Amino acid sequence: MSDATGRREPGAVAEELRAEAVRRDTADPLAKLRDLFVLDDPAHPEGAVYLDGNSLGALPRAVPGRLADVVAREWGELRIRSWTESGWWETPERVGDLIAPLVGAAPGQIVVGDSTSVNVFKAVVGAVRRAGPGRDEILVDAATFPTDGYIAQSAARMTGAVVRPLPMGGMAGAAGPRTAVLLVNHVDYRTGELHDLPGVTAAAHAAGALVVADLCHSAGALPVDLDAHGADFAVGCSYKYLNGGPGAPAYLYVAHRHQAAFDSPLPGWHGHRDPFGMVPEYAPAEGVSRGRVGTPDLLSMLALEAALSVWDGVDVAEVRAKSLALTDFFLRAVDAYLPPGRVRLVTPAAHERRGSQIALECPDAEDVMARLIARGVVGDFRRPGVLRFGFTPLYTSFADVERAARTLAEVAGVAEVAEGER
Amino acid sequence: MSDATGRREPGAVAEELRAEAVRRDTADPLAKLRDLFVLDDPAHPEGAVYLDGNSLGALPRAVPGRLADVVAREWGELRIRSWTESGWWETPERVGDLIAPLVGAAPGQIVVGDSTSVNVFKAVVGAVRRAGPGRDEILVDAATFPTDGYIAQSAARMTGAVVRPLPMGGMAGAAGPRTAVLLVNHVDYRTGELHDLPGVTAAAHAAGALVVADLCHSAGALPVDLDAHGADFAVGCSYKYLNGGPGAPAYLYVAHRHQAAFDSPLPGWHGHRDPFGMVPEYAPAEGVSRGRVGTPDLLSMLALEAALSVWDGVDVAEVRAKSLALTDFFLRAVDAYLPPGRVRLVTPAAHERRGSQIALECPDAEDVMARLIARGVVGDFRRPGVLRFGFTPLYTSFADVERAARTLAEVAGVAEVAEGER
Repeated sequence: MSDATGRREPGAVAEELRAEAVRRDTADPLAKLRDLFVLDDPAHPEGAVYLDGNSLGALPRAVPGRLADVVAREWGELRIRSWTESGWWETPERVGDLIAPLVGAAPGQIVVGDSTSVNVFKAVVGAVRRAGPGRDEILVDAATFPTDGYIAQSAARMTGAVVRPLPMGGMAGAAGPRTAVLLVNHVDYRTGELHDLPGVTAAAHAAGALVVADLCHSAGALPVDLDAHGADFAVGCSYKYLNGGPGAPAYLYVAHRHQAAFDSPLPGWHGHRDPFGMVPEYAPAEGVSRGRVGTPDLLSMLALEAALSVWDGVDVAEVRAKSLALTDFFLRAVDAYLPPGRVRLVTPAAHERRGSQIALECPDAEDVMARLIARGVVGDFRRPGVLRFGFTPLYTSFADVERAARTLAEVAGVAEVAEGER
Repeated sequence: MSDATGRREPGAVAEELRAEAVRRDTADPLAKLRDLFVLDDPAHPEGAVYLDGNSLGALPRAVPGRLADVVAREWGELRIRSWTESGWWETPERVGDLIAPLVGAAPGQIVVGDSTSVNVFKAVVGAVRRAGPGRDEILVDAATFPTDGYIAQSAARMTGAVVRPLPMGGMAGAAGPRTAVLLVNHVDYRTGELHDLPGVTAAAHAAGALVVADLCHSAGALPVDLDAHGADFAVGCSYKYLNGGPGAPAYLYVAHRHQAAFDSPLPGWHGHRDPFGMVPEYAPAEGVSRGRVGTPDLLSMLALEAALSVWDGVDVAEVRAKSLALTDFFLRAVDAYLPPGRVRLVTPAAHERRGSQIALECPDAEDVMARLIARGVVGDFRRPGVLRFGFTPLYTSFADVERAARTLAEVAGVAEVAEGER
């Protein structure tokens, strides 16, 4: 620990935490899943501690071989025939049905394709149209990841609606007779706060409004239970906790009861009832397939399909239990290793309000994160002063967590010294 | 030729055509490019004759190795760091600049991402907004590939405009003071007819209207010269003559002079001026980057980038010359091998009205194409009775063309017999 100040030498506490990490990793029923991922880092032969799976999930080992086969055989040898012989045409629905159990959806309600932003547009416009005349207000989580807000503004402009930004906590009480739709986040991208999606959905429904839920920061990390709480529309990306790869296609959930009336603003030929009829009039396909637009990005989508194989037999409740155990352990280790006040916890401490991410605030967050990354502990930084650490239960170990907290203490100590010298 | 009737035995004419094919392949300056593609077909050890590159281009040999590196190293080892260290963030503009010379565009006007349908939506809405008040009419090629028409209808509905379908030949004369935009095809997907894009653009401009050009069936097969004829907006896919792979991302061209006013209906965070500012107000990026929406599908996009390497040093004028030579030779061979009236030529015979595809009509087209494919000659079928043969000049040989016409004669003969026996 050449760059530690000495003052931070963890000593006996660290020995205890390290021993606890070993015990918990040994007892962890999900520990074996770690081998399904590539976590090597040539710059750190001891391995990386990758806590940025809430931004880009690690590579599942199943992907390279499958993608090579898609390229060499399905594209290279079968070429156009793969649309039928390799099942390319049905990929958006087939991969959607693989995501479905992870978000508590029965089959036939999720279609994969396009980006999250494009799916927010489909869902918000679809929900406004579904809400019907007299409802022209879109409530948007004021702290949302910005793209949702930008797209909601465009949807409002193009449907004659207005956007009202509100804190998530004020959403349920604000839905009224003019409200068409609430665009809500399940987990806040910045703070890691888990919101009460069932509660806000129930309140929206009581007011006659619909909900579009953004699951980017929850799906794959905790139970979502869309069907159980009567969700309307949902969107999410697949490159975070679903490990689908950079820019992997997003997904759109449309509850069965809304599908027949779902009126997409992007009625492309892949969502047509008879796509090869090549008729000039649009007639939407049955079911969630009408959420499709153009030709899907199959290389990315088939890589995602392979990535989803890691979920075979995995219980999302067990994933959630490990997620909370990991974040609890991280908070204890940060408390033990860092002096009081060095960082401020942004993420709620209560389990029922915590996603699978811990956000810590400190004035020199950008510097601290750069130092952490140089030491092989990878989280990310969000302006102005937030350190984000994502805990992907499928591949994060308790030993990773202990090392991350210890390294944080070391680099934060250096940072303090450096600041004092300025 | 076990399934030939004998009556079709090509004899002396065939010998001449085969000898001519050999001579022309030997003299072809582009012939060496064929080795850059995978054209194997395990079911046909003699090789496939692949004439469906106008639907899905063949696999460039550069793709598998590059994509394996993207997955194993950029995603697998560098993970999130690749957004900066592997240049992921700039990929949409970088790949756009690789497509630019193929469509006659100076750099900085093309951004890659999303599907063609989504880009048609961006371009048509952007053009209607750009055209300004009082112009509320969208003229659409009545014979367009259907998705353009469906999306134009949605764009019209969401901007208060109306769609007027017109034959391409009537477009130039129909643009008037109410016309906002003409959504036109450069080459007809079904007939292979090449339209006068410069002419219709000039007429639109004279009427104060803008043009959105769909280049799906022209880019990579013939010169497009967007800048030279003062194009406004254009879209295209990259999986046909650009060989980007199944569902490879599409592209959007916005002429420099329209960029500052381009007002996208899909203002996602990747098109924001300061995407990591994470501010709630949308402010579009400078230049064509404002055409970006969400996180790009990088596996597909980086495969496309590798696929575009086959164009290094290739002159599009030479590609066009070979394309016309191939389609001329095919027409001569079809004339020589098939009895008069067996098939009807749908594609215009005049060079200036012909793309890189030949469409032939016959009542049993679906059967004929199935038999052709079984014999290793792959084109496709479009309802009700069209055989489509696409000629990708980079990998199609004159020998391919002769074999395709000869096989067509053989299977068409069988079809006639089979019909007579019913």
